[in-house]
Amino acid sequence: MTDVTIFGKGNMGTAIGAVFAEAGADVDYRGSTDAVQPVTGEIVVLAVPHPAVEGILANYGEAFAGKTVVDITNPLDFETFDSLVVPADSSKAAELAAALPESNVLKAFNTNFAATLGAKQVGGQPTTVLVAGDDAEAKAALIALVQGGGLAAKDAGSLKRARELEAVGFLQLTLAVTEQVGWTGGFAVAA
Amino acid sequence: MTDVTIFGKGNMGTAIGAVFAEAGADVDYRGSTDAVQPVTGEIVVLAVPHPAVEGILANYGEAFAGKTVVDITNPLDFETFDSLVVPADSSKAAELAAALPESNVLKAFNTNFAATLGAKQVGGQPTTVLVAGDDAEAKAALIALVQGGGLAAKDAGSLKRARELEAVGFLQLTLAVTEQVGWTGGFAVAA
Repeated sequence: MTDVTIFGKGNMGTAIGAVFAEAGADVDYRGSTDAVQPVTGEIVVLAVPHPAVEGILANYGEAFAGKTVVDITNPLDFETFDSLVVPADSSKAAELAAALPESNVLKAFNTNFAATLGAKQVGGQPTTVLVAGDDAEAKAALIALVQGGGLAAKDAGSLKRARELEAVGFLQLTLAVTEQVGWTGGFAVAA
Repeated sequence: MTDVTIFGKGNMGTAIGAVFAEAGADVDYRGSTDAVQPVTGEIVVLAVPHPAVEGILANYGEAFAGKTVVDITNPLDFETFDSLVVPADSSKAAELAAALPESNVLKAFNTNFAATLGAKQVGGQPTTVLVAGDDAEAKAALIALVQGGGLAAKDAGSLKRARELEAVGFLQLTLAVTEQVGWTGGFAVAA
């Protein structure tokens, strides 16, 4: 049984947790006001808005050593909605990997709206989680969990591709806030 | 009647031309070995691989003044398939706009595989052309032509968003070359 610890009890955290639970994982949620406690999950999901990541690292960074850490953030400048806050040649996931050299950092779920994780479909296609990361084993384990939870998953390449995944997430959010796609829609992946 | 001049007679050029012709446009094709001739189209589409853009600009740059120039390229490093050849904080479209200050440069079609332009659907959703650009009138005219040709189109924002569109195109190509999506599939846009 895989243990998963999810930081964040919002729409995304609970939707991701439901997918993992369906796959048979034991899911433990950690909220921002919860006391700092040992991290039992082999897989840790940071399902929080990007500005909250730093605080989690301060409290838990050392506890993440040896674990898979999944970054789902879209590091937008929420004031302008016109740029990302990470350097253009980098990504939030790359910054996280630099801060957690003893963890296997994966980028995933940032291109999925929460509602599509529950509905398991986008525009008639299976909801597809795009996963980028440098550790093949960690990536395969996450993909297996996602598939076990009834979603599709694709290997988006090395962690370097997190830059493109964050661009996809950014663009999708701009289409949603301009009401050109709904929060139950967005990018689908067709075979 | 809108006149369109398409540079490139490959899969993408002919598929885009067919869409515009269905919308009622007069479409003129220009191949790489054709003699340099006056450009009659109000809209010019550069439907060529990114390394060929420079040569077209050398021959035609001045003739593009006052026209809408549509950049459909995915500026990949085709040797490594692991990066784009444009600076991380820029895009091929932004470079084109800098080289053509008297033209209205739009980014479009780079997230559409040629087969999906002909089929008019991706995974059961209408094929959707994402259009970015700074000139609202030029963008609206292109969107109208695309819709007139039986496809969907969405306003992806200012030309700054070409960076994200090129990231989407890049990611989609990596999924296709790793055979995780087919050339008739890829990213669909669901309402």
